[in-house]
Amino acid sequence: MQITQLNLSDEIIDLGVGQPDPSLLPLAVLSQAAKHRLTQPDASLLQYGMEQGNEYFRRSLAQFLSDGYGVPVDPDRLFITTGATSGLDLVCARFTNPGDTVFVEEPTYFLALRLFADRRLNVVGLPIDENGLVAEALEEKLAEIRPAFLYTVPTFHNPSGVTLSASRREHLVRLSEQHGFYVVADEVYHMLAYTAVPPPPMVSYDASGTVISLGSFSKILAPGLRLGWIQTAPDPIRRMTRSGLLLSGGGMNPFTSTIVQSAVELGLQREHLKRLIGIYRQRASDLEAALNEMLSASTTYIPPGGGFFYWLRLPQDLDTAALRDTAKRKGVNFQPGVNFSAGGELHNFMRLSFVYYDSDRLREGVRRLAAVIS
Amino acid sequence: MQITQLNLSDEIIDLGVGQPDPSLLPLAVLSQAAKHRLTQPDASLLQYGMEQGNEYFRRSLAQFLSDGYGVPVDPDRLFITTGATSGLDLVCARFTNPGDTVFVEEPTYFLALRLFADRRLNVVGLPIDENGLVAEALEEKLAEIRPAFLYTVPTFHNPSGVTLSASRREHLVRLSEQHGFYVVADEVYHMLAYTAVPPPPMVSYDASGTVISLGSFSKILAPGLRLGWIQTAPDPIRRMTRSGLLLSGGGMNPFTSTIVQSAVELGLQREHLKRLIGIYRQRASDLEAALNEMLSASTTYIPPGGGFFYWLRLPQDLDTAALRDTAKRKGVNFQPGVNFSAGGELHNFMRLSFVYYDSDRLREGVRRLAAVIS
Repeated sequence: MQITQLNLSDEIIDLGVGQPDPSLLPLAVLSQAAKHRLTQPDASLLQYGMEQGNEYFRRSLAQFLSDGYGVPVDPDRLFITTGATSGLDLVCARFTNPGDTVFVEEPTYFLALRLFADRRLNVVGLPIDENGLVAEALEEKLAEIRPAFLYTVPTFHNPSGVTLSASRREHLVRLSEQHGFYVVADEVYHMLAYTAVPPPPMVSYDASGTVISLGSFSKILAPGLRLGWIQTAPDPIRRMTRSGLLLSGGGMNPFTSTIVQSAVELGLQREHLKRLIGIYRQRASDLEAALNEMLSASTTYIPPGGGFFYWLRLPQDLDTAALRDTAKRKGVNFQPGVNFSAGGELHNFMRLSFVYYDSDRLREGVRRLAAVIS
Repeated sequence: MQITQLNLSDEIIDLGVGQPDPSLLPLAVLSQAAKHRLTQPDASLLQYGMEQGNEYFRRSLAQFLSDGYGVPVDPDRLFITTGATSGLDLVCARFTNPGDTVFVEEPTYFLALRLFADRRLNVVGLPIDENGLVAEALEEKLAEIRPAFLYTVPTFHNPSGVTLSASRREHLVRLSEQHGFYVVADEVYHMLAYTAVPPPPMVSYDASGTVISLGSFSKILAPGLRLGWIQTAPDPIRRMTRSGLLLSGGGMNPFTSTIVQSAVELGLQREHLKRLIGIYRQRASDLEAALNEMLSASTTYIPPGGGFFYWLRLPQDLDTAALRDTAKRKGVNFQPGVNFSAGGELHNFMRLSFVYYDSDRLREGVRRLAAVIS
């Protein structure tokens, strides 16, 4: 049985996990939203749905995103998916051929690398710094090869936590126009801002339809819903709706869409997000305090300001993958840096998440970790 | 806006549609099931789910299928999908490479052809008769080329309505073992038997893991749920769960799965299916009576015994695609045969569905059709 996203041992504090704390999953929200929706005399949510996604839901979602992003979002530029992963897979299906090259950040989201491998895409990693992807490195690489797309996590990056600056967003989008490639922006952490105010999402910088933004309810409501969206220009949306997958199955998740529509329209999504931000802000702060207190000064990080993760840089001679067995014996786990590397590097990094455990467990986790790496 | 599976004009009776009658969509069933599930103090349905699908749901589904199929179904051999289309797409992703050949029936489900085209697969059509795919034709073609898989709709075939005989099922599965290809059996109509008793599903004939069966709640509960399953051996299941798509997103539809689990466990799914069978049996009978009464003897068909469709054979010199404009002006529509042909043939066939309209509208539709083709 494969259980990558599930099932944690009670004995090990696994700071490597990327899913939310089960005690924060909003069952009451979904229960209320389902009751609200399913007691209305409208069975159309049970029929095949529009390929692009239910229009009423897209309008509610657009309003919610406009408020959350602070920039207007057009419902006609939203396409409903079963999550950011399904969105990324559909983008690969419609905008790449096997053998094409995609650019990613180094480090990048490790399971995106799996998805690209499944699609037989060549992956080229580009460096990041504290302001996100280094635009000059992208420009240099573009002189050699034009990718099908650049996959980026511009805000509260997974795993590094950094946020792409406004000027670089502008620069990246201009390069995508000049060189003819898509920018596929995985923006699932955008609204989870605790101490930083990120620039507007990538689509805000798009003037000619080269940006495809992936969003999801997984981080702000519940992963089990399998509900997300793509925000992009009409032409990429048409290319997706005209696939055999969509023409045969109809919209990707009409039933859940309308229930979440109620959660949005009743204000429950906004309230839940506000609650999450408060809790995650505290946990991030407490994890950071523990890191500062218990780890040696040779372990460094850039404070993320939002999202899910701290990305620790250890002394160059340490290999975090090799430390995992010892760590587990001491009751702690993490994601080793090499998992996030397109080129099999980053051996001296590790990713920690602060959203799964409460502050006491986070602190205990860091205490155990300190016994391994200090 | 793409609306292939949706939005019908009131003036045209569209006998070409494949979706259920909106008045038969079981809103009360889903409302009751959601209430039952979401008032239990278990938020785990909101977390990332197991890649293979929730085990409790798979157990309930296995019991339901064992009853419906009349043969035992092992929950460990079920993999939960977002519908038969998503299952077929995943099978293509994991078991084919672009340029591979797949065999299909001639005619076959037209949107499967779109999906295969998106995957850049070569499609070879094989003839059928009143007992389904002609096994000898398959054997001959296998002497030339080994396909990645054979895609078949063995029971109440879409569009032809025919059912593959038990001896041919046996034969096909033996050939798949001998020649090393998968049989991908789209069995979404299997439990919709009105006057015929089909042989057991294809997996029942499988001894060595070469059969992959696609099932769905779209035809027996509601398409908008986007919920289905694959029944197959452990090895193909492992190949699917180990994809980047599943590892990143977790199980394909955990939230809806648990709601439908309640519908199954409360007996609501069984009741609804029984009701559908009663209504569809009557509609099929009434459509057939209208066909016999109003169409000329030069239009023939094989009575389907179950499923959704009648497949009309018109005189050889008629081109049903060319008749569509006239038909629409007379207030009726259908699916022309050429849509279902891998080789662009079958010009003198058309597919009619009897599940979307009540008997009065079906009869009126046939009356209008008779004015076009008689």
